[in-house]
This record gives sequence, structure tokens and C-alpha cells, in this order.
Amino acid sequence: MNFKTIQWVGDSPGFVRMVEQTLLPQQFVEVDIRTVEEMVDAIYRLAVRGAPAIGVAAAFGVLLGVQDCRKLSSDSLISTLDEVCSKLAAARPTAVNLFWALDRMQHRAQRDFEAGLETEALLEALQQEAQSIFESDVETCRRMGEHGAELIQDGQTILTHCNAGALATAGCGTALAPIYQALADGKRVAVWADETRPLLQGARLTSWELLQAGIEVTLITDNTAGSALRAGRIDCIFVGSDRIARNGDVCNKIGTYPLAVLAREHNVPFYVVAPLSTFDPNILEGADIPIEERNESEVTDIGGQRVAPEGVGVYNPAFDVTPAKLVAAIVTETGVIKNPDQSKVEAVLRSAGRIE
Amino acid sequence: MNFKTIQWVGDSPGFVRMVEQTLLPQQFVEVDIRTVEEMVDAIYRLAVRGAPAIGVAAAFGVLLGVQDCRKLSSDSLISTLDEVCSKLAAARPTAVNLFWALDRMQHRAQRDFEAGLETEALLEALQQEAQSIFESDVETCRRMGEHGAELIQDGQTILTHCNAGALATAGCGTALAPIYQALADGKRVAVWADETRPLLQGARLTSWELLQAGIEVTLITDNTAGSALRAGRIDCIFVGSDRIARNGDVCNKIGTYPLAVLAREHNVPFYVVAPLSTFDPNILEGADIPIEERNESEVTDIGGQRVAPEGVGVYNPAFDVTPAKLVAAIVTETGVIKNPDQSKVEAVLRSAGRIE
Repeated sequence: MNFKTIQWVGDSPGFVRMVEQTLLPQQFVEVDIRTVEEMVDAIYRLAVRGAPAIGVAAAFGVLLGVQDCRKLSSDSLISTLDEVCSKLAAARPTAVNLFWALDRMQHRAQRDFEAGLETEALLEALQQEAQSIFESDVETCRRMGEHGAELIQDGQTILTHCNAGALATAGCGTALAPIYQALADGKRVAVWADETRPLLQGARLTSWELLQAGIEVTLITDNTAGSALRAGRIDCIFVGSDRIARNGDVCNKIGTYPLAVLAREHNVPFYVVAPLSTFDPNILEGADIPIEERNESEVTDIGGQRVAPEGVGVYNPAFDVTPAKLVAAIVTETGVIKNPDQSKVEAVLRSAGRIE
Repeated sequence: MNFKTIQWVGDSPGFVRMVEQTLLPQQFVEVDIRTVEEMVDAIYRLAVRGAPAIGVAAAFGVLLGVQDCRKLSSDSLISTLDEVCSKLAAARPTAVNLFWALDRMQHRAQRDFEAGLETEALLEALQQEAQSIFESDVETCRRMGEHGAELIQDGQTILTHCNAGALATAGCGTALAPIYQALADGKRVAVWADETRPLLQGARLTSWELLQAGIEVTLITDNTAGSALRAGRIDCIFVGSDRIARNGDVCNKIGTYPLAVLAREHNVPFYVVAPLSTFDPNILEGADIPIEERNESEVTDIGGQRVAPEGVGVYNPAFDVTPAKLVAAIVTETGVIKNPDQSKVEAVLRSAGRIE
């Protein structure tokens, strides 16, 4: 990739530099984020988005919130850390990677605090932990790409929804990683991208990053996916996820569920690509996943202009849930879970030490 | 309705006055159309749209094209009529009501010409024929409303796609007519409207006209219909049609087919409301219906602003086809065709004298 979605700049103190995704594709601008409040705002307004990237942003956000605490006692540092994590946790409710990353930061600090480390060493440890979350995301994307590429044949056309690419991670993406890997392996691939209303991540972000990588992209309205599938123009579907339940139910960008129903109708495999950090061991099934409802203006206004009449009601959930039975496979960094169900998901989480 | 979607003003010569639908809901403006070229343009750029309204517009367009021919021979009038009809027929390819209305005008002229009528009388006959197409559309909408209202229970929530309301007809609509009738019958009804990308007829037009009529409307992105159905928030779906094949396959606005698949998945009845003029006896099945592909900019640009990157490909069909097996019923002005198939559709067309 010739851009870095999110990175830590400097040592300690340092700051976060990220692609300002709300301006793409018209403008490629990087913004520097220097406070927790700026990070919460960046996550909420989707300057940085995509479950894995939000996890990295949260870890870096913790660093922004504690790096000025060198003169505090280790006790006070831990309290400050808790406050910082609460603020970041409130930024968005659905992507579990946010909470997973905050948990990792807090556990690391707690463990080292209980081992008697002082403030300076605790800050060092948090810096290491955030860097590790960043680096493992890059590596995880690479591995998901390798596992997922095995599902793609030479000459295939892949449909994707929203953006689950490099712009959604610190690495080369989730759903798009297998496509980049297939290309690197010499396979010819073409991508159809749903524009993905209301925020048009497909039109703005997926199209942009695939074109950057030299991949042929056909943009369609979300309404057109059904016709494309019915006409046999799509060989397989790859999407990302914001949270996966223990039974394999997949929460992802609104519009994913209808796509999965259409995929089954047309015998086209529906693949989900997500790191293990997207699995939530505390959620048994998809119905228990909290779904973020966003501002009405995302639907009533387009490009700052009101398109709907005053007085209309709006229902604007950002995500939907696809039942596991519609998912042909979930691709993770440790391998491919075909026909996912509770026992298969739990086996994978157990191997990875995520559950006992 | 407190507005007239399309009307003939004056006698002969006269002109057409129509709601300029591209400006709704921000501005309610009526435009006057005085030439065939203006009418072709109005149809193409969707100032007037909706299959029945396009039929009426075509009939009125014929009048615009021939009304200055009083001094021609009846022979020359017939040639002029043919030219005018060719121009109007090229405006949009999918809505069969366009061709149906032109056929009616040509047949009337041809019959009267062969009966020996002179130019003045032929012009009078065409005026009568166009007025009859207009008036029968109003009456047809009323009857579809009555038949369709029987399918709606008190307290139900109805999902609709695109605009198949008063703005799509000379009367009170196709898909929305049963809703207006149910309301008039004292039933409590609520409507959820798909915004309907790319041209947002749901957000702009359906929301507007339902609010005008005092009906509660909830606007959703097209992506949200799946979640709404899965959550049990929708009791039935009503849509219009641009062309119906002899076997009951239904061509309608892009995004209708996925909705029909989702409706079946959730055991929600999927109803199509269309006048007999929308049936095409010359088309055996949906696959044979020509599908209009429209300009890429409808997808890449929103509100005059480019949202997609340069270099992206676009596939922008305006319509899709829903197989008859997914349709619970087709409501016409003569009654309800439950579980439509070729024999039922042909029986209805035969009764109406549309086929032998």
C-alpha cells in the first residue's frame, strides 16, 4: 500500500497520524490526532473506521491520554487510564475490536502494576502493547490474505460491501486482503463494489484503494447487487465484520445481511474475513450484539444538502446481523472456518487462548 | 391529492403542465411542455416518471406534435404522427405504458383515417383518445386502490420501494393507491420507504407525497430493508411495475428483486400493483424485457458532486426483474391475481381484450 491508514509518530510523547477518510477520494489528507478527545471525535465521525483500525486507534488513543502522566503515581496513572478507556469506549458501540484493544491495554497495565512497576515503566509497557496491537494487525491482515486467497480462483469476479480494506486496518485489510494476495499470486481478479449507503464507503473508499492497487473495480448501487448475482456476474462475496458472536453470527455494515440472503439464493459463496479480535466470546448470538443507530441526517442529507422532506421519520442502524447459516466460511489469521457454528468458533477461540 | 402530476391545459392548441419532479421535495414547481422535443427530454430526465404517468405523457406528447398540422392532408398527418411517435418511443425503453399509449394513439388515427376522416376530425379524435388515456388512468388508480386495500389490515406497516404513487400516475398511484384507500377506509397504516438509489425517488417523492396525505413515513436506506424485515417491523410490501411479462415476471425499479427475495425469506407478502397497460402481451418472460442502463454519473455523483474516484467502472441498470414465483399477488384495476402465473395473467388479459 502506498499510504498508511493509521500510524504512531514520534516516540513518547508522540501523536497519531491518520488518513482523514471523510475527505476521500476527492482529497488525500492526513490528520494528526494529539488528544483523547480528538481521537473519540475521529472515531465517531469516521475519519478512522473499520473494526481493526478502530482497535489500533483505541490503543493509540490510550497512549495519547496517558503520555503526559510521567509525574503521577502509578496508582493515579491506573485511574487516569480507566478514565481514558471509558471515553474511548463510548466513541462507537458495535465494533468489538475497540473494546478488545482497550481491554488489552488495561490488562497489560494492571498486570504490570500488580507486579510493582512504577509509572515510567508502566508507560513504557503501554507503548509496547499499543505497538504490538498495531504490528499484529499488519501481520494478521497478511495471514488472512493468504488463507482467503485460497478461496479465489483465477479470473473470478468478487463482490464486496462497505470498505474492509487497507483503509479499515493498519495492514492490507480484511475482506480485501485475499484479493490483494490473489493478485500478488498472479490470479486475474475483478471487483464489484456496493456503494454502501448511507456513507458510501464502497464508492469513496473501496473503489479508491482498489484503483490505487491497479485492480479493476465496477461500482454499483446497493440495489444492483441482486441483479448482478441473478445474471451470474458475481463468483463470490467477501465482506468484513464488526463483531462475530460465539455461534458464528456476523455483524457487519448495514446491507450485508440482504447480500447474504441473495448469495444463498444464487449459490454464490458468502465469505467473511475477520481477525480473532473481532470475535466476542461474551456474545452468544447475533441478536445480542448492540447495533449503533446513527444520525438521521446521514439518510436525509447527501453531500450537505437535504434530499428528504421535513417531517419524515428515519431509521438508521449502521449495522445488521447475518446468521451463521448463510456464511460459507469465516477467514481468520489462523485459518478458514467453513460453515461456521458455535462448536467450530469456540474451538478456534480456545486454540487462540481467547476462551478456556 | 392537492397537486396534479400531469394535465393538459387549454383545448387545441394546448400544452402540458406537469410537476417538475427533479426539484422535489425542496421546490414544488410546475413546468409547461409545448413541443415533442421538450416532452422527450422531460421523460428522459425524469421530470415526469412512473410507468402510468409516462403513458399519459406520451399521449399528450403526440398531441403536442400534431396539433399544428391542421393545414396538412390527412395522409401527411398520419406520417407526421408516425415520426412523432418514433421520437417519443425513444425516450425510455423499459416502461411499456409508453409504447401502449403510443399504440393506442396510432391505432385510433389509423382506424379513423381508414374510415375516411379528414385532418380536422383526426386531430379531434386524437385529442379524445389522449383525454381518454388520461381519464382512464385516474379511474384505474382508484380501482387498484380499492382492490389493493383489501390486502391491508388495520394497524399494518407497509414497505414500498421507489415512487409508485400519485406522482407516478395521473391519479392516486399504483402501489400507494391501496394505502390511500386503506386510510380513507379508516385503517391505521404506516409506511416505510426505501430511499431508492440512485435517484432517491423514495426519499424525495414517496416521502413527500405520503406526508402531504398525512401518512406517517419512515425513510430507510435500501440496505436497511433486510434488517427491518428480519426484525418483524414490516407487514407487507407494495411496489409498482414498469412492465409485466405474460408469465407474471415483474420488471420494476432496481432493488425490487432483492426486496422480493427478502420478503419470501421472512414470509412477508410481496404485492405488485399495476394497471393492465403495464402488462406486455408480446413478452413471454422477464428475461426478455429490455432493461434501460442509465448514465454512470447517477452513481458516481450525488447532488452534482463527484463522490467516486476517477477511473472506476459503473454498472447502472434502472430496473430489475422479479420472477412471478416471488409475487404474492398482482393488483390490477380488474382485480387481484394471486400467485400469478402465465395462465392466470393470460386469462386476465383475455378478459380485458388485450389478447385473443
